[in-house]
Amino acid sequence: MRSFSIGVIGAGRIGKIHIENILRKLTNVNLKIVADIKINDKLKQWATEMGVSKLTNDAYEIFNDPEIEVVVICSPTDTHTNFIQEAAKANKQVFCEKPIDTHIKRIKETLSVVKETGIKLMVGFNRRFDRNFIRCHEAIASGQIGEPQIIKITSRDPAPPTIEYIKVSGGIFLDMTIHDWDMARFQAGSEVEEVYATGAVLIDPEIGKAGDIDTAVAVLKFRNGAIGIIDNTRQAVYGYDQRVEVFGSKGCVVADNEAANTVRIYTEECTNIDKIPYFFMERYMESYSTELKYFLECLRKNIEPKPNGEDDLQNVLVAMAAQKSYEENRPVKITEVDK
Amino acid sequence: MRSFSIGVIGAGRIGKIHIENILRKLTNVNLKIVADIKINDKLKQWATEMGVSKLTNDAYEIFNDPEIEVVVICSPTDTHTNFIQEAAKANKQVFCEKPIDTHIKRIKETLSVVKETGIKLMVGFNRRFDRNFIRCHEAIASGQIGEPQIIKITSRDPAPPTIEYIKVSGGIFLDMTIHDWDMARFQAGSEVEEVYATGAVLIDPEIGKAGDIDTAVAVLKFRNGAIGIIDNTRQAVYGYDQRVEVFGSKGCVVADNEAANTVRIYTEECTNIDKIPYFFMERYMESYSTELKYFLECLRKNIEPKPNGEDDLQNVLVAMAAQKSYEENRPVKITEVDK
Amino acid sequence: MRSFSIGVIGAGRIGKIHIENILRKLTNVNLKIVADIKINDKLKQWATEMGVSKLTNDAYEIFNDPEIEVVVICSPTDTHTNFIQEAAKANKQVFCEKPIDTHIKRIKETLSVVKETGIKLMVGFNRRFDRNFIRCHEAIASGQIGEPQIIKITSRDPAPPTIEYIKVSGGIFLDMTIHDWDMARFQAGSEVEEVYATGAVLIDPEIGKAGDIDTAVAVLKFRNGAIGIIDNTRQAVYGYDQRVEVFGSKGCVVADNEAANTVRIYTEECTNIDKIPYFFMERYMESYSTELKYFLECLRKNIEPKPNGEDDLQNVLVAMAAQKSYEENRPVKITEVDK
Amino acid sequence: MRSFSIGVIGAGRIGKIHIENILRKLTNVNLKIVADIKINDKLKQWATEMGVSKLTNDAYEIFNDPEIEVVVICSPTDTHTNFIQEAAKANKQVFCEKPIDTHIKRIKETLSVVKETGIKLMVGFNRRFDRNFIRCHEAIASGQIGEPQIIKITSRDPAPPTIEYIKVSGGIFLDMTIHDWDMARFQAGSEVEEVYATGAVLIDPEIGKAGDIDTAVAVLKFRNGAIGIIDNTRQAVYGYDQRVEVFGSKGCVVADNEAANTVRIYTEECTNIDKIPYFFMERYMESYSTELKYFLECLRKNIEPKPNGEDDLQNVLVAMAAQKSYEENRPVKITEVDK
Repeated sequence: MRSFSIGVIGAGRIGKIHIENILRKLTNVNLKIVADIKINDKLKQWATEMGVSKLTNDAYEIFNDPEIEVVVICSPTDTHTNFIQEAAKANKQVFCEKPIDTHIKRIKETLSVVKETGIKLMVGFNRRFDRNFIRCHEAIASGQIGEPQIIKITSRDPAPPTIEYIKVSGGIFLDMTIHDWDMARFQAGSEVEEVYATGAVLIDPEIGKAGDIDTAVAVLKFRNGAIGIIDNTRQAVYGYDQRVEVFGSKGCVVADNEAANTVRIYTEECTNIDKIPYFFMERYMESYSTELKYFLECLRKNIEPKPNGEDDLQNVLVAMAAQKSYEENRPVKITEVDK
Repeated sequence: MRSFSIGVIGAGRIGKIHIENILRKLTNVNLKIVADIKINDKLKQWATEMGVSKLTNDAYEIFNDPEIEVVVICSPTDTHTNFIQEAAKANKQVFCEKPIDTHIKRIKETLSVVKETGIKLMVGFNRRFDRNFIRCHEAIASGQIGEPQIIKITSRDPAPPTIEYIKVSGGIFLDMTIHDWDMARFQAGSEVEEVYATGAVLIDPEIGKAGDIDTAVAVLKFRNGAIGIIDNTRQAVYGYDQRVEVFGSKGCVVADNEAANTVRIYTEECTNIDKIPYFFMERYMESYSTELKYFLECLRKNIEPKPNGEDDLQNVLVAMAAQKSYEENRPVKITEVDK
Repeated sequence: MRSFSIGVIGAGRIGKIHIENILRKLTNVNLKIVADIKINDKLKQWATEMGVSKLTNDAYEIFNDPEIEVVVICSPTDTHTNFIQEAAKANKQVFCEKPIDTHIKRIKETLSVVKETGIKLMVGFNRRFDRNFIRCHEAIASGQIGEPQIIKITSRDPAPPTIEYIKVSGGIFLDMTIHDWDMARFQAGSEVEEVYATGAVLIDPEIGKAGDIDTAVAVLKFRNGAIGIIDNTRQAVYGYDQRVEVFGSKGCVVADNEAANTVRIYTEECTNIDKIPYFFMERYMESYSTELKYFLECLRKNIEPKPNGEDDLQNVLVAMAAQKSYEENRPVKITEVDK
Repeated sequence: MRSFSIGVIGAGRIGKIHIENILRKLTNVNLKIVADIKINDKLKQWATEMGVSKLTNDAYEIFNDPEIEVVVICSPTDTHTNFIQEAAKANKQVFCEKPIDTHIKRIKETLSVVKETGIKLMVGFNRRFDRNFIRCHEAIASGQIGEPQIIKITSRDPAPPTIEYIKVSGGIFLDMTIHDWDMARFQAGSEVEEVYATGAVLIDPEIGKAGDIDTAVAVLKFRNGAIGIIDNTRQAVYGYDQRVEVFGSKGCVVADNEAANTVRIYTEECTNIDKIPYFFMERYMESYSTELKYFLECLRKNIEPKPNGEDDLQNVLVAMAAQKSYEENRPVKITEVDK
């Protein structure tokens, strides 16, 4: 099996997950360099314990290393387009965390460079690699439920991020719902034409003062006629609620939450089940290694990975249409924001 | 316990259910007269077997009978307002099948008469009396899930009605979603302010030709800030899919479908569960006797029954706003249709 | 459809259930006489409200009535054999509550009379008519799980009966497990050859003082090679726990408890489901009307009903072998108690 | 945190699992030597890829290495007592795969040596570390279900091992049920006094010819009065069926199987759930790293690990009593086999 030398840019929370997966769960890979702009003692120690062979604060060491074939970009969003373009110019294959950027123009420019250089670019919408959502997709792909007609996504975080984070997040539709736009498109097998979004501040007034909402509902119209429904909240006190349902002409597929365990306790008062596991680290951990394995497999077989740059672009477009819809309280077509 | 003499107007499908429940499941009641405009041999035979003591084609025999205290109206919708008003003038308590009427003006006129005469009027939104949806409501009422923030209703019929029925149905929002408007209001504990509705013809093009849609999605904004989501389809091939979910500040309550049985069959291929029971006769049968018992209990205790005429009015207003929203592809405020 | 005139003997708890079902749930039947040795005002009032046309304290009025074709025997166990024999001699079809008797000899004598007279005798092991256990049986009968190899029955009462009842009950194996012997044989499709039973007094020492146990476990060996496992307790504080599992060469079928409702409540602490409904009245209510309908159907089609007298005999034999096994702490063959 | 140098003896299937866990999932450990009597190229390659620093065919290199503090024994069962004793004499802490031995005398001798040397010995009954069974145990320990009264274990393999394996396995009670004896004791919190075991050859006649059975049922009586029920089969075609249920005076705790995913597919025919994952590698993978972490934690805190040598001895005693019970078709007391 063909082996890959890999460079990782960014060793924050998500970067560490990818680094650990590369070192411990992937085979036929060599993590040659990890680049992070802020190298401190704690990171050094973590890298040593983990077995990272080289740590640098200069990402260009990765681009300049002829042995490195694959670049995994986990740095802050506003650095993505630059790093993707540099990697592309150095003829390296790119896995980039989502989103590529929050500006349509910059995404499109970057996708042009990607196209010209002929490299492959995969974007880390990891939920597509969750075993449950894959199974939904398979049920649809195999025709078990016929034509998808209604796609329902429940996506609720257990607790809101900090107000500081909210302020720079780009808004709930771009920060949180972005995963759901992607999931809806993935399951519908079609592109969004129009979106109606609404929402409210029901969790924390501070989120409202920061110019955002904490509860959101969106209705999507897809080109194939299917209708999508998404509901989000920043705070589901009972845990990280992540469900997908696709109703079709021949049936319906429902992916429920992962349980903490399979135990039921029957008592005189009621029956108890433990609450669902807390957050994305637990729920989606496996999907992170699965997506990277898939990406390397695409490279080995020379096939276009999905979700790719075009998916990212569509997701950001839907987010922008949703934001506009919320602000103007009317359905908004994707073409209105894609100029 | 105080006993009631009852007259029933209309012995069609739903009338027969009420008659059977009065005769076999209610106590301290006397079904004195059943009136139906079309009395044929089949109905006569059914009435005899069931033990109906008197069958007439003249509803006024009921209004004129001083012993009869309670009138149950199950005749076609366009006769409801007349019969309610006649019953009210005769000082009888009225249980009327939903909806009272499809014209706001006539509903309001009728509610005025009801108010003047001081009788009690309950409208048969029977799903409020389903044991599962009652349990949801209790969970909310008891504060277990805090303030309701998102109300999600899945309401899917197993098969579409005939095209003839579709043509006179008043449209999906008034014919089918009417139950869901009521359920959403019941669970939200608040009135709807604005509705956005969309839909499509995905099941049968003939439905489209008849001027209706067969797949519908609606988003509701409630006065208390909660957001409602409803999805409907005329054809869920896997059965009558009726679920309610209410997300709140302190938790979430979910009422799933009733199962055909509790059996799971594990085989080499997969695990099988029998499909959900077919239609409303099976799913909601118990709710029909429960709602009548509740109504008689309200009469005994002299308390206002719910859902009443005002609920019916609100449900019809939401249906009209939904229709307008669908037609104009924009959110519509209830005040726009309530003039 | 052929109609039947019915006489019921015994209007206690179970008799009342049958009477109500005959009057309200069966069609083409005429409940002509109800006989009970103790007629008091309360029973008279109940009979009137229910619409019982004739109440007598003399069962022979039923036997002597030439119009009555079917006798339903719900009187105390020690009267069963006499009434069955009298009914048989009067050429009436008999539905008898379980068990026919607690003495093998008297059961056999009675079955001889039944055989000679050629009447049909069905015994009221109603759990065979529970929709869930029927579904298990169908899965086996249709070959979905192959040859049954392990039959597991969980059968737990919510609360023990009174000590007075325990004293005359005949012991847990004859009083409570009798239903499970029948269920095991029903699902196994084979007769029991050997039984090992053990038990303990874990709920209430008074039960031990009364000479009985309150917790029991039995292992059955069937002629077809299958092995049965039953566990009983007189007190499951979380409700009436009634489950059946059949493991076979090609799969496994599991019938779980009926739920109080389908609602789940997710909170910060855990997820709650309401406790299972309380007792046999609720869980098995439907099975009582289903078994009578089935019996009348057998009469109409002139086919042998099941479970019949032979089933009752086998169930009592297994109970006796179990009692002996418990007392002697060794496996006991059915042939040891069937002399 | 205190760090440990570890030597592993045996690099077969289970040895490889432990080696991988030590290298990739445990922290503050150093895998210094792996010893295996059969070192071939394939093993060498595996070890290199995995990052094993030293591979030897001489286990005594481990015993003689003063730096190594912990020995993990994964060699064939008949070598366990020797290796444990050697390790103990070299003053090393021992984690040994189950069982220590199949001869009571040799187990007891070994436990004496362990006691004299004062080392800690843990035995790898890994199922105690399954998240679901831990949760059961916690429910009991916290008093949620009161006193345990009935312990039910369903333990079914997806497919039988080879006949060659069966012949040297020691019989189903020692080979397969051994895990269930341990689980029953773990959940009951008490020792077994008496066992009744029965069984049959229902899967494959070759297993019978090899002197074993493939279907087994056992009833256990515990010192605390609880009763245990275990059922085993060598072939559940629907997957690896591993369930535990503990009924107590105040409730019942049930641990169901882990699901392949949370997806349900509703179709016109029925609802489908994917079959349960295949075998112990998948179901119990996490438990293997959890048990080793726990053992190291015990060493750090200087507390006696559980399950230890005494647990292993009890499990083997119960297995022998079960075998005797099966052969003699009578309940057998543990004291009968513990001489």
